[in-house]
Amino acid sequence: MDRRSFLTKGAIGGTAAAASTLAAPAYAQGNRTLTLVTTWGRGLAGVHDAAQRCADTITAMTDGQLTVDLKAAGELVGAFEVFDAVTSGQADMYHGADYYFVGQHPGYAFFTAVPFGMTAQELANWYYQDGGHELHDELGEIFGLKSFLGGNTGAQSGGWFAKEITGPEDFQGLRFRMPGLGGEALGRMGASVQNLPGAEVYQALASGAIDGTEWIGPWADEKAGFQEITKFYYTAGMHEPGAGLSLAFNRDVFDSFTPAQQRICEIAAGEAHQYNLSQFLAENGAALARLQSGGVQVLTFPDSVWDAMGVAAQETMDSYAGDDLYDRIRESAMTSMRSSSNWITESEGTYRAQRDRIMG
Amino acid sequence: MDRRSFLTKGAIGGTAAAASTLAAPAYAQGNRTLTLVTTWGRGLAGVHDAAQRCADTITAMTDGQLTVDLKAAGELVGAFEVFDAVTSGQADMYHGADYYFVGQHPGYAFFTAVPFGMTAQELANWYYQDGGHELHDELGEIFGLKSFLGGNTGAQSGGWFAKEITGPEDFQGLRFRMPGLGGEALGRMGASVQNLPGAEVYQALASGAIDGTEWIGPWADEKAGFQEITKFYYTAGMHEPGAGLSLAFNRDVFDSFTPAQQRICEIAAGEAHQYNLSQFLAENGAALARLQSGGVQVLTFPDSVWDAMGVAAQETMDSYAGDDLYDRIRESAMTSMRSSSNWITESEGTYRAQRDRIMG
Repeated sequence: MDRRSFLTKGAIGGTAAAASTLAAPAYAQGNRTLTLVTTWGRGLAGVHDAAQRCADTITAMTDGQLTVDLKAAGELVGAFEVFDAVTSGQADMYHGADYYFVGQHPGYAFFTAVPFGMTAQELANWYYQDGGHELHDELGEIFGLKSFLGGNTGAQSGGWFAKEITGPEDFQGLRFRMPGLGGEALGRMGASVQNLPGAEVYQALASGAIDGTEWIGPWADEKAGFQEITKFYYTAGMHEPGAGLSLAFNRDVFDSFTPAQQRICEIAAGEAHQYNLSQFLAENGAALARLQSGGVQVLTFPDSVWDAMGVAAQETMDSYAGDDLYDRIRESAMTSMRSSSNWITESEGTYRAQRDRIMG
Repeated sequence: MDRRSFLTKGAIGGTAAAASTLAAPAYAQGNRTLTLVTTWGRGLAGVHDAAQRCADTITAMTDGQLTVDLKAAGELVGAFEVFDAVTSGQADMYHGADYYFVGQHPGYAFFTAVPFGMTAQELANWYYQDGGHELHDELGEIFGLKSFLGGNTGAQSGGWFAKEITGPEDFQGLRFRMPGLGGEALGRMGASVQNLPGAEVYQALASGAIDGTEWIGPWADEKAGFQEITKFYYTAGMHEPGAGLSLAFNRDVFDSFTPAQQRICEIAAGEAHQYNLSQFLAENGAALARLQSGGVQVLTFPDSVWDAMGVAAQETMDSYAGDDLYDRIRESAMTSMRSSSNWITESEGTYRAQRDRIMG
């Protein structure tokens, strides 16, 4: 039996059971278990939590009619195999960073982060108000997915390095872990870029297989333990100014849900986007203080490095131009970013500057 | 029959019906209509939308088991009567700005905004991660409410004035509309402060009953039409750096819901908080450009005004000290704000400055 006919029969069976009786056992029979695979090792701070929140919220809001069973990276399929697992129907849903899948389509980068792109709030503005979600749907139609933002790390750290970075030439030959188009930009600066899933980064850095890595931010980085290996930490970076995480359903599976269940999935993902962002931001301040008191040096790239990153990012973004959908996603995202960013600078930016000046 | 016994009987009746048969008419009989009263005139840009989104999402996710019927300000009770309407059981829920209810308890101010307080993101960090929601619950236990954040305007504009503000002395005797503790701070600067609901502000300003007003931001202010009356517009202010809107249930009503329904209400409100914030931020940029091309002067208060506001805000916040719950809410909010704000400045702040420098 192929998956599609299984699903159809399952849905019909469920309806028939529901129509005949409402006794408790009949309800239990109507429950469906959905397999959620993730790009995160079980327990990875923040990112696994976002996936688990989506799973738990959908299960709770449907009273178990949709019971989501989370399989972390490696438990059913590998981290980077989740896209194929869901499009093929091996799993029902994935939670992950869509920029891992730029090989499937470069447009996916925008739904996590692109270099010199949107902050978390700018991403939300675009996604929920300025056409972002509709473009995510267009990508999903190509691959048989129905996707939602379902987590956000906030602005990510520039990363961990074996030595201080004094200029762009320090990236020449550097073996560095960075996914997505940010990683491609570093490659254009001469780095040898590797795209490792989170669960494999510590070992690669500890063994010397890579010279440095970015991961997320102080909280998740501290949990990963990178401070045990090196002490040079750059807290701001150009590559992921507000990385969105996606919850993606096999489209046939999603289409088999009732309208109420579909709405529950959408709202659960949206709420997880906000909740997870607040989690990262609330945890990062205290974690950074702990890292510093443990001897980690908090550093900022010199302007010459930012300038070189700007050139490399522009070249990277331009290198995909010509694909109609990529071009439309890029134009839509950048137009929205410029508009909402101006207002944020004008209002919240002015306020924060005055608050800092007066209250310290 | 008092409301509590009505509710209890209703809940038992619903359960009994559900256990006997699952035919469609039985489902329909199980549906409950909940009356949602709001502090917003029907259609007020952004704020009414947030209330409507909460209503629609709860109705859709419960498949109508909880059907939320929105009554805008004046349709059942007046804007500022919603608190009493819900605590007394006249209505089931309200959507509004909790700082309208500082007369009930000054701690409510923190769940909208306090002068020199949290941005929208800092509020979310506190509310969802650092104990804010639990303190909202403590307030709710006093009054018989179960509250959630269910909308956010982002940083609000400083407001509309009849003439340019050149120093703090210009606030002396100024008849100005500003609610909450921000309004009290303006009062300490010599202004004659009025707390009008949104639907009444335009008429008050047009008639000369007030000399100036703040409302929300460019989008909502433009819809309200203040640019027809005056052209002096201050885009940044101290009073509402990220105003949260609340969805509050009568606690007996909330307690009568099933666990799945309770979770649906919680997640619907959380999602509305994010969705509504993105709505305000996406709309404000374009609206500001329209206002400017229509002749509105976009202005910034001089530092001397910000300094005086800082002193007045501190005095206002201190004036409520001594109430145990107020003190604990204030300490909790400010501790969270300082922690997450530091990281946001370190990461996103540095990034935005570099992006502005390089990309313009």
